Amino acid sequence: MTIVLGDNQYGKSETHVVRVTRNGATHEVKDLNVSVALAGDFGDTHLTGDNSKVVPTDTQKNTVFAFAREPIGEIEDFGIRLARHFVNEFASVYRARVSIQECAWERISAEGKPHDHAFVRAGSEQRLASVTCTDDGTWVVGGIGDLVVLKSTGSEFHGFVKDRFTTLPETHDRILATSVVARWRYAGTDVDWRQSHAEIRRLLLETFATRHSLSLQQTLYAMSEAVLEARREVAEIRMTMPNKHHFVVDLTPFGMANDNEVFYASDRPYGLIEGTVTRDDAPEPGLAW
Amino acid sequence: MTIVLGDNQYGKSETHVVRVTRNGATHEVKDLNVSVALAGDFGDTHLTGDNSKVVPTDTQKNTVFAFAREPIGEIEDFGIRLARHFVNEFASVYRARVSIQECAWERISAEGKPHDHAFVRAGSEQRLASVTCTDDGTWVVGGIGDLVVLKSTGSEFHGFVKDRFTTLPETHDRILATSVVARWRYAGTDVDWRQSHAEIRRLLLETFATRHSLSLQQTLYAMSEAVLEARREVAEIRMTMPNKHHFVVDLTPFGMANDNEVFYASDRPYGLIEGTVTRDDAPEPGLAW
Amino acid sequence: MTIVLGDNQYGKSETHVVRVTRNGATHEVKDLNVSVALAGDFGDTHLTGDNSKVVPTDTQKNTVFAFAREPIGEIEDFGIRLARHFVNEFASVYRARVSIQECAWERISAEGKPHDHAFVRAGSEQRLASVTCTDDGTWVVGGIGDLVVLKSTGSEFHGFVKDRFTTLPETHDRILATSVVARWRYAGTDVDWRQSHAEIRRLLLETFATRHSLSLQQTLYAMSEAVLEARREVAEIRMTMPNKHHFVVDLTPFGMANDNEVFYASDRPYGLIEGTVTRDDAPEPGLAW
Amino acid sequence: MTIVLGDNQYGKSETHVVRVTRNGATHEVKDLNVSVALAGDFGDTHLTGDNSKVVPTDTQKNTVFAFAREPIGEIEDFGIRLARHFVNEFASVYRARVSIQECAWERISAEGKPHDHAFVRAGSEQRLASVTCTDDGTWVVGGIGDLVVLKSTGSEFHGFVKDRFTTLPETHDRILATSVVARWRYAGTDVDWRQSHAEIRRLLLETFATRHSLSLQQTLYAMSEAVLEARREVAEIRMTMPNKHHFVVDLTPFGMANDNEVFYASDRPYGLIEGTVTRDDAPEPGLAW
Repeated sequence: MTIVLGDNQYGKSETHVVRVTRNGATHEVKDLNVSVALAGDFGDTHLTGDNSKVVPTDTQKNTVFAFAREPIGEIEDFGIRLARHFVNEFASVYRARVSIQECAWERISAEGKPHDHAFVRAGSEQRLASVTCTDDGTWVVGGIGDLVVLKSTGSEFHGFVKDRFTTLPETHDRILATSVVARWRYAGTDVDWRQSHAEIRRLLLETFATRHSLSLQQTLYAMSEAVLEARREVAEIRMTMPNKHHFVVDLTPFGMANDNEVFYASDRPYGLIEGTVTRDDAPEPGLAW
Repeated sequence: MTIVLGDNQYGKSETHVVRVTRNGATHEVKDLNVSVALAGDFGDTHLTGDNSKVVPTDTQKNTVFAFAREPIGEIEDFGIRLARHFVNEFASVYRARVSIQECAWERISAEGKPHDHAFVRAGSEQRLASVTCTDDGTWVVGGIGDLVVLKSTGSEFHGFVKDRFTTLPETHDRILATSVVARWRYAGTDVDWRQSHAEIRRLLLETFATRHSLSLQQTLYAMSEAVLEARREVAEIRMTMPNKHHFVVDLTPFGMANDNEVFYASDRPYGLIEGTVTRDDAPEPGLAW
Repeated sequence: MTIVLGDNQYGKSETHVVRVTRNGATHEVKDLNVSVALAGDFGDTHLTGDNSKVVPTDTQKNTVFAFAREPIGEIEDFGIRLARHFVNEFASVYRARVSIQECAWERISAEGKPHDHAFVRAGSEQRLASVTCTDDGTWVVGGIGDLVVLKSTGSEFHGFVKDRFTTLPETHDRILATSVVARWRYAGTDVDWRQSHAEIRRLLLETFATRHSLSLQQTLYAMSEAVLEARREVAEIRMTMPNKHHFVVDLTPFGMANDNEVFYASDRPYGLIEGTVTRDDAPEPGLAW
Repeated sequence: MTIVLGDNQYGKSETHVVRVTRNGATHEVKDLNVSVALAGDFGDTHLTGDNSKVVPTDTQKNTVFAFAREPIGEIEDFGIRLARHFVNEFASVYRARVSIQECAWERISAEGKPHDHAFVRAGSEQRLASVTCTDDGTWVVGGIGDLVVLKSTGSEFHGFVKDRFTTLPETHDRILATSVVARWRYAGTDVDWRQSHAEIRRLLLETFATRHSLSLQQTLYAMSEAVLEARREVAEIRMTMPNKHHFVVDLTPFGMANDNEVFYASDRPYGLIEGTVTRDDAPEPGLAW
């Protein structure tokens, strides 16, 4: 019996960089949380503590800051430049993955117009990108996180399996609420990232809003399908949708009806629906995920 | 030596109620997190476990749900109705305080118009209200929480005390970022709560944006002053503003200048600036806080 | 009408300092999270941005680290030294408050004995101290945070007020679970802090365990009373005890009895019980809280 | 181009069940957070909203509670019973995965002996199990989460790659601190789970403590190797170890030396070291992960 090192990676996580760009008096702010993970020829440091092939995570952090000195542009492009750098620069690095969360800031409106250099955080929603590079390829995964949505009707759930542990009543009208995490694999890198992200976000929201739902799975599939049908640049989409339960409160003990008006929003437990939707002619995922 | 019971209160915290109101096909959603705290003649339960004057916290929760059966209106009014109920209904309750956090939902835009019944969470910002009632009075404190703002310039900090532990350089240009929690005491209850809240929020944001800052304290005071000057219904305002430090990254080791462009956003430690601003003719705070 | 600055304070929060002390090969680790808040003659910075009386929060952080260069000892003493420094050193500082959270580390046991320099975190429980100094006095508040306890029996709740919103059944056997935050004001500073803290912790736990409970209020009072009776150095104790509800799951739909065996642990809402217990001959609290 | 449903699963997450077992006056408490994920023949609900093959997540929750009616035993066994149930009972379920986090409670010591029915939470550390069942097999992954450890010496880091972005000095003495998440795949199911978990925990801690470290990777490998060498029932181990940086504070501006005594504990960014270690004769992982 021999003990062997299997898959491994390491890197600096959550370097929080804020980049201010000045166009005269008008400033732009980009707020990124950048994580790097490197895989490659790192057996020695595991087995003997020989670090001669190790790029310190501190250096990775410095590199993120130094690269932010140049205009960042879209996070997908910033991720590509960073990931490519680690692969090109260091013989020991076989694969570099750069994952970025971007928080949006909106201009404060003052005296009737958007302010030059004052901003307010635009919610908890995040734009996501994960870029993987090797000598042989570049894979880009876009995404959106913490997109919290709710429908107050237009959602049913019935016709399900019943067994001896089933107590859930069938319903033809319920609240459907979830916090969407969607990640999509791009078929290539020749993409208008900003427009693509904006359109995918719009499609996800519109489909959630307008499609009648018989199950959260159906909603997940419909949202994914809408993206794949409209956006040829997307090869595959993976979604995670917790079912954030809203229970109709029983007010009958107080002599009151409750016709889907008063709900208790529960934290735990919650349903968790996860699914992948792709197209049959999509390129192979390779190392994208 | 005798051991004595001092101040005490109890209640149900964080009842998360979501209320859907239907105007035909158009729905409204209110998303409230309600906490109740009662003080009064509760010595017996502490000293002997005699609960004959105790209104169970479970009943308080039920009451929140039952009261949500009627139209909620503004959270300040909902808080008044609830707090007044506990004081009026139960001889043992001397003082009831109802604290409410409201999360905003925006309509999803679908096919070019706001959707009837589908919503997206509008950020982490919260509208706050805390209502205190006794037989003798009603006190309303409005507020806003988690209002995260940033100025990329227009902020200085210099001229401060130096001692042997001072290493901070003076600066004439820095990022100023904070997560505002503002709470204001209303002078009375005859207030258009919705409009007042909206205007106070606007004043806070505009003042943050437009006033040049020589210290976060100055900014806090200016924001408070703007509210008190413009809104006669406000007697006092209390603000908490963590100084969320953004440090200029030293890029000189890499042969790069960094003219306030690349910042590291630090989590801890952080400055914490707290202040109260009032007017000299304000009514006494009584039991408001 | 004149607008006036009221109570205000500022300081550096959550400086996380870890101090290693070497006694030969045997190391001690102290892990402290230190927050400083200063009040005094700070009107100018609020009104005009004149910072000539402001001790920067960055300097406060440096001071915490510099003071950690000397042996820290007990956190109450460390807090006294720091708070006294700010009051003595700076004419503008009227009142300094230093709040400290200490996380405990236990030695890892290796080869049958406690290791010299390797440690494992001993739970989420925290030792707390808050020290307030002015020219005229020193006030020390000790405490314990996140002490999570549970009794699987020996707790009842009945005989409470019933009204039209009451649905809670009376119970003569329930789980009682809470996360204790206890803070106690010392009558003076001539105290063996370590021993006092250990004994108070023991008294709180033993009383929680051994006293039959008719309400969480009664338990809170009994725990406080036990401390005040046994520890003459404590003048007053304030406790916050969320009632972390454990509901008996109704298994009758599955043809099963559930004699207080299977519980659902709920997150929200929760009861929140808060109380102060003191002695009639206690010195005045002054600026302790 | 055809759009196709790929991998998908759904289930109830974070059912928090507390089970009390009475042996006369002596109670045992088990505190479990149980998540279920089912995969199988669920295309219909995605494509058409036909739920006739869907086992509602509400039923899954009920099942967890109902199964907790019988003695739970070790979480690995409880997970096997639950996962097997879902596969056996429902034709549409191809694969069931049950993931469990167990929080430990220790008896409160009262009057010199462990109390019968009063407990205090034993830290944030968690025992983990993840069980996967199909008609063809059962895979058990054990684990430990949030095991926070620190060495105040016996750790070096030098000899690493230098490039133009490297500023990290080499060090021959540093603090090494991490929050271990370790998960190990068992080769079979005929295991004394309790003893195995206890021994693996001991091996992880002892190896962390006693092995001199030249890199966190080396420490990760050594800890894994120690487990695989001593525990034949373990086929593979996967570890995630964030490098929780403790920086030596520069006290020279204050005329003080700092010989690895005063450290600043940083939250972000952090290194993240991940690795898998296995044995060459290990059975295939199948669906374990």
